[in-house]
Amino acid sequence: MELDAIRAAVRAQSPLVQCITNYVSMDITANVLNAAGASPAMVHDVEEAGEFAALASAVVINIGTPSPPWVDGMRAAARSAADAGTPWVLDPVAVGATSYRRRIVDELLALRPTVVRGNASEIATLATAVAGGRGVDSVLTPAEVLEPARRLARELGAAVAVTGPEDFVTDGRRTVLVGGGDPRMPLITALGCALSGLTGAFLAVEDDPVRATAAALATMADAGRAAGVQAGGPGSLRWALLDQMADDSRRSLDTLVRAG
Amino acid sequence: MELDAIRAAVRAQSPLVQCITNYVSMDITANVLNAAGASPAMVHDVEEAGEFAALASAVVINIGTPSPPWVDGMRAAARSAADAGTPWVLDPVAVGATSYRRRIVDELLALRPTVVRGNASEIATLATAVAGGRGVDSVLTPAEVLEPARRLARELGAAVAVTGPEDFVTDGRRTVLVGGGDPRMPLITALGCALSGLTGAFLAVEDDPVRATAAALATMADAGRAAGVQAGGPGSLRWALLDQMADDSRRSLDTLVRAG
Amino acid sequence: MELDAIRAAVRAQSPLVQCITNYVSMDITANVLNAAGASPAMVHDVEEAGEFAALASAVVINIGTPSPPWVDGMRAAARSAADAGTPWVLDPVAVGATSYRRRIVDELLALRPTVVRGNASEIATLATAVAGGRGVDSVLTPAEVLEPARRLARELGAAVAVTGPEDFVTDGRRTVLVGGGDPRMPLITALGCALSGLTGAFLAVEDDPVRATAAALATMADAGRAAGVQAGGPGSLRWALLDQMADDSRRSLDTLVRAG
Repeated sequence: MELDAIRAAVRAQSPLVQCITNYVSMDITANVLNAAGASPAMVHDVEEAGEFAALASAVVINIGTPSPPWVDGMRAAARSAADAGTPWVLDPVAVGATSYRRRIVDELLALRPTVVRGNASEIATLATAVAGGRGVDSVLTPAEVLEPARRLARELGAAVAVTGPEDFVTDGRRTVLVGGGDPRMPLITALGCALSGLTGAFLAVEDDPVRATAAALATMADAGRAAGVQAGGPGSLRWALLDQMADDSRRSLDTLVRAG
Repeated sequence: MELDAIRAAVRAQSPLVQCITNYVSMDITANVLNAAGASPAMVHDVEEAGEFAALASAVVINIGTPSPPWVDGMRAAARSAADAGTPWVLDPVAVGATSYRRRIVDELLALRPTVVRGNASEIATLATAVAGGRGVDSVLTPAEVLEPARRLARELGAAVAVTGPEDFVTDGRRTVLVGGGDPRMPLITALGCALSGLTGAFLAVEDDPVRATAAALATMADAGRAAGVQAGGPGSLRWALLDQMADDSRRSLDTLVRAG
Repeated sequence: MELDAIRAAVRAQSPLVQCITNYVSMDITANVLNAAGASPAMVHDVEEAGEFAALASAVVINIGTPSPPWVDGMRAAARSAADAGTPWVLDPVAVGATSYRRRIVDELLALRPTVVRGNASEIATLATAVAGGRGVDSVLTPAEVLEPARRLARELGAAVAVTGPEDFVTDGRRTVLVGGGDPRMPLITALGCALSGLTGAFLAVEDDPVRATAAALATMADAGRAAGVQAGGPGSLRWALLDQMADDSRRSLDTLVRAG
């Protein structure tokens, strides 16, 4: 499908996206998904996470505020998604910051995510197997990790998406670069987490992970760019982005992407 | 009391409303309660949930993101509220989605909530004792569950409120229909959860659960309608709704309700 | 440093601020810190909280929605911060409401916070060692607890900040009063929690806790005052405050503070 058609399919099909995400991102992730036309469901506990994942159209796992009970739920949901052939996204937030995060991510990667989305520092950490990055913010740019991301994608058999000033997604063979956005988007906390959630919705309606992820990245960049025109700072950018995400009928994603 | 008088009483008395609610709804629930003049307190752990419920003016329990430790706190708070004669609200989010949610709700219903508020699919699930509904969004309209809701209310000895394009509350004998609102309100994540919270505040100042709940539903619908005039999408609708919730002095709830 | 210079240093250095805070405040705390130029990280579980605190520039601990596993993480982070000489802030939310909160705060106070920030009722509870206050809202004004706060600061060897209609910070010898703000700021849920987070960022760049805290209080009051000019209620005040927090280049904090 063309990118605009994938975006339209999300709104038409309203896929059920199970998100096991961090506390900070709950609100913005659910609201972004709702605005895009998807149906978010935050279901995290091991008592129901696996059962629910078997019903969901996609699963998104974000380790931003991890704890042992939540990791149990992540494991159950990822296994259930893998068993059902349901696409799932891993967001390895601040994986380089602590040894605990590194262990969680290594275990989850073994459950074969469809897409791994992070900032450049996070993806560099995974690609080099060397701890790094001081927290949730990146000290590298996407362009600096293009080759490591391609290698990582081939090793994992997954698509790898890196977001920042310019975004890209690659499966190790094909790479799609995505522009657009607004320079103030990083000031909206957890917008990257919300983008991981959105990627889940797009994977639910398009089988090709690279195309689905490119459409998700472009949808966020497009809404951010349109919102930036009317926003005076990060507070107004946030609500304007949700408004634009909910009404994208007069814009096209085509101009935002190019092969890399 | 007249509905406008109940709303005014919430602002005058600023009731302390203990909310044990899901992670996604924390922010919007607390902000809606604050804007309406109530005093929200999120106190969930079993170490203090029962002790706090004995002091609260109302208790609101929402199972949106359940886990065993939280359910322990819900049980303690509901018992404490019941023992103290304090009104309490149950919001059975996505009760049809997993067997775990069904078990939690069955147990909490035995502790005799004053009001049960849900969407049409959730209430239908409770009324028919048959699992259904794929997630947090409803596939039925309130009108389709009017009779089942009345039966359920009589069985439970509680008021049952169903919200959607049009809302109603019933105790099985009397039914009040509530109009108003804005069609984009479902795009604001967890606004229904916030409405359950608001219902708690209204129960704290008015003894009749049907009238109290009707006033809460009308207050939300009224704020949503007023906000819709100025909003360009779900992002701006959210902040405009909070602005309107905080300043309702020039509007009346009377035109929004009718007997059903 | 002058207050404006401290604020500029936060933006220039982007200190990494570890927040173990309540569920309600996660979103607003992180967004306020981001808008001010700091780098927030919500890292709470005992599996990593101590390890992360050793790397952080400041630690902020807020007991708003406590539970035993979170308190384990708070203890680990506070100890790690104390061992590393890293400044840390304690926000004793609703400490008078339950015996559980009182026990948690007593234990954390023994780990020597750099700053304790609360509303007047919370600080009065700590200063008098007598339970009081019904929830998260204060029934006292800051001016009423000026002397008890000074005594408390001397006893703890910490700076004590009290916020409300007018704010102050004291170490028991020096006191700085901070004006400004907007009367609707209390309607933004958890803005006080966000201010505790901001205080952490300022402590990371300025060694004097009284000056650092005064600069944080003034920064919030200044952003609130500027936002109030354009806001129609608590919903618009929130996003306007974030916009103003992110762009404070044309304002000075000097006029907001005076010795007390």
